Amino acid sequence: MKRYTECSQAELIALQDEWQTKFDHCKKLALKLDMSRGKPGPEQLDLSRELLRYDLADGMTESGVDARNYGGLEGLTETRAFFSEVLDIPAQNMIIGGNSSLNLMYDAVVRCLIFGTGGHTPWSKLPKVRFLCPSPGYDRHFAICEELGIEMIVVPMTSTGPDMDMVEKLVAEDDSIKGIWCVPLYSNPQGICYSDETVERLAAMRCAAPDFRIFWDNAYGVHHLAGETPLRNIFEAAGACGNSDRVYYFFSTSKITFPGAGVALVAASPANIAEISRHMTIQTIGHDKLNQLRTVRFLKNADGVREQMRRQAALIAPKFQLVLSHLEKELGGSGVAEWETPAGGYFVAVDTLDGCARETVALAAEAGVKLTSAGATFPYHKDPRDRNIRIAPTYPSLAELDKAMQIFCVCVKLAAVRRLLDGQK
Amino acid sequence: MKRYTECSQAELIALQDEWQTKFDHCKKLALKLDMSRGKPGPEQLDLSRELLRYDLADGMTESGVDARNYGGLEGLTETRAFFSEVLDIPAQNMIIGGNSSLNLMYDAVVRCLIFGTGGHTPWSKLPKVRFLCPSPGYDRHFAICEELGIEMIVVPMTSTGPDMDMVEKLVAEDDSIKGIWCVPLYSNPQGICYSDETVERLAAMRCAAPDFRIFWDNAYGVHHLAGETPLRNIFEAAGACGNSDRVYYFFSTSKITFPGAGVALVAASPANIAEISRHMTIQTIGHDKLNQLRTVRFLKNADGVREQMRRQAALIAPKFQLVLSHLEKELGGSGVAEWETPAGGYFVAVDTLDGCARETVALAAEAGVKLTSAGATFPYHKDPRDRNIRIAPTYPSLAELDKAMQIFCVCVKLAAVRRLLDGQK
Repeated sequence: MKRYTECSQAELIALQDEWQTKFDHCKKLALKLDMSRGKPGPEQLDLSRELLRYDLADGMTESGVDARNYGGLEGLTETRAFFSEVLDIPAQNMIIGGNSSLNLMYDAVVRCLIFGTGGHTPWSKLPKVRFLCPSPGYDRHFAICEELGIEMIVVPMTSTGPDMDMVEKLVAEDDSIKGIWCVPLYSNPQGICYSDETVERLAAMRCAAPDFRIFWDNAYGVHHLAGETPLRNIFEAAGACGNSDRVYYFFSTSKITFPGAGVALVAASPANIAEISRHMTIQTIGHDKLNQLRTVRFLKNADGVREQMRRQAALIAPKFQLVLSHLEKELGGSGVAEWETPAGGYFVAVDTLDGCARETVALAAEAGVKLTSAGATFPYHKDPRDRNIRIAPTYPSLAELDKAMQIFCVCVKLAAVRRLLDGQK
Repeated sequence: MKRYTECSQAELIALQDEWQTKFDHCKKLALKLDMSRGKPGPEQLDLSRELLRYDLADGMTESGVDARNYGGLEGLTETRAFFSEVLDIPAQNMIIGGNSSLNLMYDAVVRCLIFGTGGHTPWSKLPKVRFLCPSPGYDRHFAICEELGIEMIVVPMTSTGPDMDMVEKLVAEDDSIKGIWCVPLYSNPQGICYSDETVERLAAMRCAAPDFRIFWDNAYGVHHLAGETPLRNIFEAAGACGNSDRVYYFFSTSKITFPGAGVALVAASPANIAEISRHMTIQTIGHDKLNQLRTVRFLKNADGVREQMRRQAALIAPKFQLVLSHLEKELGGSGVAEWETPAGGYFVAVDTLDGCARETVALAAEAGVKLTSAGATFPYHKDPRDRNIRIAPTYPSLAELDKAMQIFCVCVKLAAVRRLLDGQK
């Protein structure tokens, strides 16, 4: 295929006619397809069917705690032991929450705002608080900052994680920078995995703010599509540099069992866990311990999680392959789109030509394909190059995905050729 | 029995000898009893045994929502309909939360601090924020204020609710007073029920602060011991005065099914619900919908709740009777203690002679009976008259309770007689 960017005006006009005709044809099909939702499909949820009727016997734990009653703010012993094995984090360094790791992140930021952390000034008393936002990234992280008045600074992503030269420079010189959002494995939306070097530099870097915090959202920590990508243990790396207090680590079983009824956790240094507990004990008497018990007994142990995730991968890997094969076949070599091939996680991110994302998403909507809104993967919904589009392949069926991707590729090409012709005017 | 307060010094010395001997005897038994925990006993939890293995079929709701997956911030339609019937509140005026109503209260206060409510200045930007705290009251309400830097003003309780003359006067003249904590039915710890007049005055009163909020914690709304004490609907009363936005209403099934895995909710005016949703949607994608489904299908409807609460009452009413009969038999007519006879809820509150609560609790501890710490039922743990003690009869067995109450009454009398002799010096 000739690269669009190398086409003459006449060639572009011919291409525009071709893709406009195809697009009009797509529209006539009046389909209603959705590739915007980063959530498991029904057949993935069926893998945890047993949880819908799990027999908890008398509701007592192995150590004789009545999981039905009040108490146990930090979570059940077996739940913490389970996650300790899965994540390689000491059990006493975690608090098991409710069903939402996002809720734990939001509350962690709120506590820093209201109370401060480590004895430092509450962030809400400072003239300005800023967070580094490796982008493209997770829109809900950015929404927390926006809601809470935290200024966001875009840091570009590289194939090994955030641009660490830029991160190190910024945190060293600006003590109003209090945090960074990280999805270290199979990042949302690009599926990028942080290299050991990236993790170690984050752990070791000199921060002007003594209360700088890494919000380590390991959302896809066990969500491999083929093989296991290793991730350097951030606590080990930070501990080796005396920076243990720098890390808030979040995880959940939302995409292991059920998004609507998973189990989330926050892990941190002993000092941070003590601080979180001190505040959380005012907020709640304890989280749902029966769901902790149900989830852990169902998944059993780290091997059980691996087995469950292999079954998940068997269901969704073909969807990722379908998306990638459409991209390769329809857009490969055209020069109008780039993408990474994720080895895990929930998304494929496509970069169109600069200035084409918004139009591509609008065209797709016109043709009945819903995509995540353009810009959503950047702070303030502003993609500076207007090129990043997040595709979520897990929820639609293969048949739906096949149709949706055909239409998507038509829209990418139509938007690109229009833009190129505009540029020649 | 002669009133201790009318005894001569010689008579008091004789009584002191008598009760000291009995106390020493109690100590020798080396018992370990606990009347401090306001939580259901195991046999109460057994009433919801079915929930430990409830079969949720395919996890779909009647209207075809997949309760296993993400979404549904406001709660499932059937869950809201269920609570609407139980509480006589429109379904659309509530948001179903996780397992903890305390968490919903804490978050409600935090939102007012960070964002303000109704377009008014965020409370954290004001020089001072104060709450009215009808006392004795619930220690965890007061702990939220203390944690969040909200100044607490004690308002005395009467047999029909807070002293409304004082409440009306204070809120009319001081716009730094932003809230009041209310447990309107079977208050913690006295078991007082708000009269219709109290509810109507709270709903109608003129508040200097336009963003004044009633934190209506209807924790014991269906927790009757004998018959149903009616409670005036606060939303109807407030609506009739154009003050609908004044009320945040909280409820949970913690003491209907399982404290460790209940379902909580916040109800409020449409404007407040919209405001809460707008913030909550940044905090979480949604709460545990499977537990909503499980809980509602198990309890079925308002009649199902009534039936469940009758079974609960059958288990705990004898415990309340035992506590009250001990009080009557051992302390009745002695003039050293007063108490109310609660018709529901979880506690019996005993007022000792002024200045005797702390010593009574200490003596009981010495004799192996754990009580809620003296002062816990007042803001800042300061009972101005040092006389209120909260007894929680539900968790211990009848046999344990019998022993614990014997010891308790000995301690009340010993502390009283010591105090009276001190007073004569």
